[in-house]
Amino acid sequence: MQGQNQQQAYDRGITIFSPDGRLYQVEYAREAVKRGTASIGVRTSDGVVLVVDKRIRSPLLEGTSVEKLHKVDNHVGIASAGHVADARQLIDYARRQAQVERLRYGEPIGVEPLTKMVVDNIQQYTQVGGARPFGVALIIGGVEDGEPRLYETDPSGTPYEWKALAVGGNRNDIEDYLKEQYTEEMDLDAGVGLALSALHSVNEGGLQAEGLGVATVDVETEQYRELPVEEVRDHLTEHDLLAEENDESDDPDEE
Amino acid sequence: MQGQNQQQAYDRGITIFSPDGRLYQVEYAREAVKRGTASIGVRTSDGVVLVVDKRIRSPLLEGTSVEKLHKVDNHVGIASAGHVADARQLIDYARRQAQVERLRYGEPIGVEPLTKMVVDNIQQYTQVGGARPFGVALIIGGVEDGEPRLYETDPSGTPYEWKALAVGGNRNDIEDYLKEQYTEEMDLDAGVGLALSALHSVNEGGLQAEGLGVATVDVETEQYRELPVEEVRDHLTEHDLLAEENDESDDPDEE
Amino acid sequence: MQGQNQQQAYDRGITIFSPDGRLYQVEYAREAVKRGTASIGVRTSDGVVLVVDKRIRSPLLEGTSVEKLHKVDNHVGIASAGHVADARQLIDYARRQAQVERLRYGEPIGVEPLTKMVVDNIQQYTQVGGARPFGVALIIGGVEDGEPRLYETDPSGTPYEWKALAVGGNRNDIEDYLKEQYTEEMDLDAGVGLALSALHSVNEGGLQAEGLGVATVDVETEQYRELPVEEVRDHLTEHDLLAEENDESDDPDEE
Amino acid sequence: MQGQNQQQAYDRGITIFSPDGRLYQVEYAREAVKRGTASIGVRTSDGVVLVVDKRIRSPLLEGTSVEKLHKVDNHVGIASAGHVADARQLIDYARRQAQVERLRYGEPIGVEPLTKMVVDNIQQYTQVGGARPFGVALIIGGVEDGEPRLYETDPSGTPYEWKALAVGGNRNDIEDYLKEQYTEEMDLDAGVGLALSALHSVNEGGLQAEGLGVATVDVETEQYRELPVEEVRDHLTEHDLLAEENDESDDPDEE
Amino acid sequence: MQGQNQQQAYDRGITIFSPDGRLYQVEYAREAVKRGTASIGVRTSDGVVLVVDKRIRSPLLEGTSVEKLHKVDNHVGIASAGHVADARQLIDYARRQAQVERLRYGEPIGVEPLTKMVVDNIQQYTQVGGARPFGVALIIGGVEDGEPRLYETDPSGTPYEWKALAVGGNRNDIEDYLKEQYTEEMDLDAGVGLALSALHSVNEGGLQAEGLGVATVDVETEQYRELPVEEVRDHLTEHDLLAEENDESDDPDEE
Amino acid sequence: MQGQNQQQAYDRGITIFSPDGRLYQVEYAREAVKRGTASIGVRTSDGVVLVVDKRIRSPLLEGTSVEKLHKVDNHVGIASAGHVADARQLIDYARRQAQVERLRYGEPIGVEPLTKMVVDNIQQYTQVGGARPFGVALIIGGVEDGEPRLYETDPSGTPYEWKALAVGGNRNDIEDYLKEQYTEEMDLDAGVGLALSALHSVNEGGLQAEGLGVATVDVETEQYRELPVEEVRDHLTEHDLLAEENDESDDPDEE
Amino acid sequence: MQGQNQQQAYDRGITIFSPDGRLYQVEYAREAVKRGTASIGVRTSDGVVLVVDKRIRSPLLEGTSVEKLHKVDNHVGIASAGHVADARQLIDYARRQAQVERLRYGEPIGVEPLTKMVVDNIQQYTQVGGARPFGVALIIGGVEDGEPRLYETDPSGTPYEWKALAVGGNRNDIEDYLKEQYTEEMDLDAGVGLALSALHSVNEGGLQAEGLGVATVDVETEQYRELPVEEVRDHLTEHDLLAEENDESDDPDEE
Repeated sequence: MQGQNQQQAYDRGITIFSPDGRLYQVEYAREAVKRGTASIGVRTSDGVVLVVDKRIRSPLLEGTSVEKLHKVDNHVGIASAGHVADARQLIDYARRQAQVERLRYGEPIGVEPLTKMVVDNIQQYTQVGGARPFGVALIIGGVEDGEPRLYETDPSGTPYEWKALAVGGNRNDIEDYLKEQYTEEMDLDAGVGLALSALHSVNEGGLQAEGLGVATVDVETEQYRELPVEEVRDHLTEHDLLAEENDESDDPDEE
Repeated sequence: MQGQNQQQAYDRGITIFSPDGRLYQVEYAREAVKRGTASIGVRTSDGVVLVVDKRIRSPLLEGTSVEKLHKVDNHVGIASAGHVADARQLIDYARRQAQVERLRYGEPIGVEPLTKMVVDNIQQYTQVGGARPFGVALIIGGVEDGEPRLYETDPSGTPYEWKALAVGGNRNDIEDYLKEQYTEEMDLDAGVGLALSALHSVNEGGLQAEGLGVATVDVETEQYRELPVEEVRDHLTEHDLLAEENDESDDPDEE
Repeated sequence: MQGQNQQQAYDRGITIFSPDGRLYQVEYAREAVKRGTASIGVRTSDGVVLVVDKRIRSPLLEGTSVEKLHKVDNHVGIASAGHVADARQLIDYARRQAQVERLRYGEPIGVEPLTKMVVDNIQQYTQVGGARPFGVALIIGGVEDGEPRLYETDPSGTPYEWKALAVGGNRNDIEDYLKEQYTEEMDLDAGVGLALSALHSVNEGGLQAEGLGVATVDVETEQYRELPVEEVRDHLTEHDLLAEENDESDDPDEE
Repeated sequence: MQGQNQQQAYDRGITIFSPDGRLYQVEYAREAVKRGTASIGVRTSDGVVLVVDKRIRSPLLEGTSVEKLHKVDNHVGIASAGHVADARQLIDYARRQAQVERLRYGEPIGVEPLTKMVVDNIQQYTQVGGARPFGVALIIGGVEDGEPRLYETDPSGTPYEWKALAVGGNRNDIEDYLKEQYTEEMDLDAGVGLALSALHSVNEGGLQAEGLGVATVDVETEQYRELPVEEVRDHLTEHDLLAEENDESDDPDEE
Repeated sequence: MQGQNQQQAYDRGITIFSPDGRLYQVEYAREAVKRGTASIGVRTSDGVVLVVDKRIRSPLLEGTSVEKLHKVDNHVGIASAGHVADARQLIDYARRQAQVERLRYGEPIGVEPLTKMVVDNIQQYTQVGGARPFGVALIIGGVEDGEPRLYETDPSGTPYEWKALAVGGNRNDIEDYLKEQYTEEMDLDAGVGLALSALHSVNEGGLQAEGLGVATVDVETEQYRELPVEEVRDHLTEHDLLAEENDESDDPDEE
Repeated sequence: MQGQNQQQAYDRGITIFSPDGRLYQVEYAREAVKRGTASIGVRTSDGVVLVVDKRIRSPLLEGTSVEKLHKVDNHVGIASAGHVADARQLIDYARRQAQVERLRYGEPIGVEPLTKMVVDNIQQYTQVGGARPFGVALIIGGVEDGEPRLYETDPSGTPYEWKALAVGGNRNDIEDYLKEQYTEEMDLDAGVGLALSALHSVNEGGLQAEGLGVATVDVETEQYRELPVEEVRDHLTEHDLLAEENDESDDPDEE
Repeated sequence: MQGQNQQQAYDRGITIFSPDGRLYQVEYAREAVKRGTASIGVRTSDGVVLVVDKRIRSPLLEGTSVEKLHKVDNHVGIASAGHVADARQLIDYARRQAQVERLRYGEPIGVEPLTKMVVDNIQQYTQVGGARPFGVALIIGGVEDGEPRLYETDPSGTPYEWKALAVGGNRNDIEDYLKEQYTEEMDLDAGVGLALSALHSVNEGGLQAEGLGVATVDVETEQYRELPVEEVRDHLTEHDLLAEENDESDDPDEE
């Protein structure tokens, strides 16, 4: 509905409204998220699952250094998609908030309050001048009051709670897969399988364990746990998702 | 009266006047409100009713996390329409003002004073440089001195008091419905029915309880109360407003 | 004398001079005043009269919440025209100045000193960068040293003292009516009648009591007093100014 | 020498030099001065005379509220031309300087030092960014060390001392008249006559006492004194300068 | 070498480099200097001479108020050319530096150190944003350690020491005259004669004592001294430089 | 995918998103890195190797002053590519962080924590206005907990861990060479040979010891060590990589 | 490679990257350096030589006031080329750093540490907004630990160490001459001869002692010493480099 020339007029300087009420800088930040590879979250009856597609660009690159999966506190993890350096800032912010909560009240921070602190921080960068929005979406998963919780933050600073979701590239296709296959009764193992299968559905050549990150927070232990590569490979084998070789991305900033 | 090219000249940098005396950034923020789904408020003889259309985009999304209905204090609730992340800032602001009032004077804040604090905050973002206006409209409803009160704030920072109103998408059509059907003597139950019927009048396919939020503040208890989904469904059934499936929105920021 | 293209050059960023020595942002703010409905002030031998046209947009809107008439102190009232949210800021400023005066000197503030404090505040927004001018004109009326006083502030920050005046839409036509009919000897009742008649002269369909605000400050009591709607209706009936139905405005910001 | 398009390039944002070494914003501020009605100063052997043309726009406007003649201290007055709201700021600044001088040294401030404080303040607004120049010229007249002194400040911040001068509209024509008629030996009464005659020379329809302001500071009393309207009328009658009716100005900001 | 359109690109906002390494705002400030009338400095064996062309615009203007010649300390004077209001700021700065030196060390400030403090101040306005350069050149003359010294500051903030120089309008022609006639052995009287003759060489109609300012600092007394108008007239008569009438300038800012 | 004209729109003022979600200023900073000569890092079983191409522009230039190889702490070195002056700032920042760690905890800083401090610093310059990104990439190599570690920082502020990598000019060709030849089992000497051979593969004329910098950190001593020029020449001779003469770069800023 | 129109896009406001990774403002500052006359540095076995071309514009100008050669500390001198007023700031900065070193550690500052402090200062002006880069290059020469050292700083903030170099106009031609003639074994006298001969090679009309500045720092005394004009003339005579008359520069800012 808006031509190219007009769009240019609304994305200079601070983030302002276009005549049809949109914040272009925020929408462009969403494009930065889409340029990254997908991250997936699944909430199951006994915990949450986070799966990230790291898409290792080179055999010389250490896959562990591709930061898409982050432990934020014992009971909370975050999977990100989009601009890596921006994600680092938000993860650091989330960690500090969790620490402050423990120091101040001696209790683990709730997943919902943590999400809301993060989105309020994100919103500031979309309204006050002198900075650009964060080009990243986060999946915040953890256990709060014995219940698994799964949240999304987007570049506008809006929080959403999900049963299962994807952020980053191919989001729509992956969510279609999740909608068809998801049931609330599945256990953690089934959740890992669902997330991997959903990711596989948009990767024609199959998946490699080294190019993936998988983490869980189960309601029993309330502990964030990243699965070792062998375990990931077992899951892939079990669901017949293993591939030979991974494609290389052309866009180094967005993961 | 103003062409496209000219409008572009007035919405860069800070919010300034156009030759015909309009503040375009404020008007564009109003467009952001229109992009959101509707929220409705009705003042009845024994309390106020707030109804919001949450329009759940996906069955995997937790409807409870779509923030359009907010308890601000025991006796005050707010329904929002427009940019969700902006609404969060204003709700937080309103809550802090209500807390300060209780701490300082030991009394619940009045609905009118609360509204005026909020609009003064909004106005600052339309006059001083370095930020954009809030892209959100609020319906502030509650009980003050035993009387039900219902206010609106818009992106310019103007307060209005209403007997019944709608903000967000289809505002005009819903208000036409309200004008025809509203009577001051209706009780709270009738008010809920009117609000749901008005919303139904612009949703061809009917309504779903899960996609709605309904809250009341009655003059007896002076307590904000969100209706459980079953009660909402009962109301829908009673007025024959129930639908099969809800449409999905294309614009995730505005609710 | 100046074409469209040239004007655009002078209204970006801060308020600066055009080649012919005009401040366009200030002139555009005057246009914002003209977009509002009229407010009228009349100084009579025994007090001042303020009349405002609230033009209620909807039967569901509470007319009392349309803020055009404001008590600033016991002995001073202000009628505004233009951008409502801006008017609120100036009214608040005026109230604080009046309070400070009472606290510091134990005396009511003079109408002239109060006016000058307000215009100095307005002027700052026309010279220093980072903000826009106020899009509002005020009529400040009250009693000072036993004498009725009636002042105007405009968006440039210039103060004027008047015998009778109008601000907002149809200003020129209303002032023509006032010039013909005004006499300094008229009493307060005659002043109310003159103001209402002047307003009627530009409203073809006649006036409605609910859509008007009328206030007086008389030299005897030195008390600001808003007339109840019945009294307003009596005045309208007496002068044969009553109408059936009020038009709706299209521009919600400016009243 | 410079076309329209080029001029536009030099008057945005802060005040900067054009290729031919001019400060356009300052020159445009001079245009704002020319848009105002004239003010005249005459230095005589026994005091200074200030005459201002208030040009009352409407019979309903109180002429006394048109601020062009200002008492700054017992022994100093200022006549202004141009943007009224800007003049108010400089007058306030001058008054504060005069008060500080009295408080600090127990002595009346000299006319020349006062002028230099004012022009230094004006200059800052022409060099440092974030503000526009003052659109006003002042005539500062008073007695210093028993001698009458008459100064001008212009929007660039340059001070001049004069025997007789005009600022504002028709400056050149009035100064031509003054050059022909001025003699240093004239007394205060003759000075008032000269100033009024000079103003009359550019007002075809003659002058009205109500539309004028006349003040003197004589070397005997060292007191600023505004002449009552009857005295002004006597002067006009004496010099055969009286008119019937005054024209209305179209430009409310500049007096 | 650079066309008009291109130049415009380099003189907005802060002072920045053009592709060929020039600072246009500084060069335009030099044009402001050229718009002023000339000032001349001559260093002789027994002191320095400063001569300024005040070019009185009107017989009603007090020549003494045209500020081009300034005493900065007992032993230092400054002659300026260009934007008068800017010169005032630099003169004030120089005076404060001289006072500080006396207060701190009980000694008169050297002419060279003073010059360098002034140029460092000037340079800041050419490198840091938010302000424009000073549109003025100064000739700083005085006695330091018993030796006459004569310096120039220009709008870039570069200091030069001269035997004889001119700044302002007709600089090149006057310097050509000085180059031909100057000898280092001339005494103060001869220096005054040379400076006046040089100024006369570019004023076809001859010079008037009232329109000139002449000052000396001799190495004996180390005292700045402005010559009374009679003495200036004697010098003019002696060298046959007297004229009838002085031209009027069209550009009031630059002297 | 984006034309020239459109790109221009996104690289003014602060770093903002383009419609397809890219940060052009960051991508242009990457071009600045590519303009520099290559730097190479290789991780071997017993330490890390850093090799830099200094490309001495002139025989008169001291090769040692071309700063591409930096000791940051006893156990950490950094090789840079891109804008030299920017690299200096980041190196200084890294050194200060390492010192603080030693002072505070009495322990050497880890290579990974150090890298993350550096990238967080880099990220700030890509999000907050008023500055540009750093035009430099770093290879950070060292020993942490007895293990060799090799990291990269890029202008977006993203950290990567590598087995072997190149930054700067010809990065892709050099990495292709590394991918073919690298084995994890190689020792430090083999690592130096690989890095030099990889650099040789993109330098047709061969290499000169004087134009290179080579440093190692071995896991035994945990000491950063720059190889003297003779040792470098020995390595070149051993692998038959020696050349006659080095090309001169045209771009002095980027090394 | 870049057309005129495109370049304009990258040199407004702050210093930012162009699409090909260049900082235009820095490159334009280099042009400012080229507009100045040349300065030359030569490092010999027993000290460093600095030679500057002052190009006296007028016989009335005192050559000693043309600031291109600066003593920074007993053992360090700086020769500059480019924008004189900018050079003054950097020289002052270098002097303060040298003083601080002496006060804090009682030792002379090293030439290399001093250079690095200066370039770090320069770099700040190329990355942080609100200022422009320095339009000047410096040759910093001195003795450190008994060794002669010769450094260059350029407008990007990059440091280089040289055996012999030139900055400013004709840099390339002079460096070609130096490359051919320089040997590391030459003594200080031969170094002065080489520098003067190199300067002569680009000045067709020969050199004049008055238009030159020559300074040395020898390793014996470790003292900066400016050669008196007679000594310079002796050197010129010895190498047959003397000329009749010096050309005048057209660009007063750059020396």
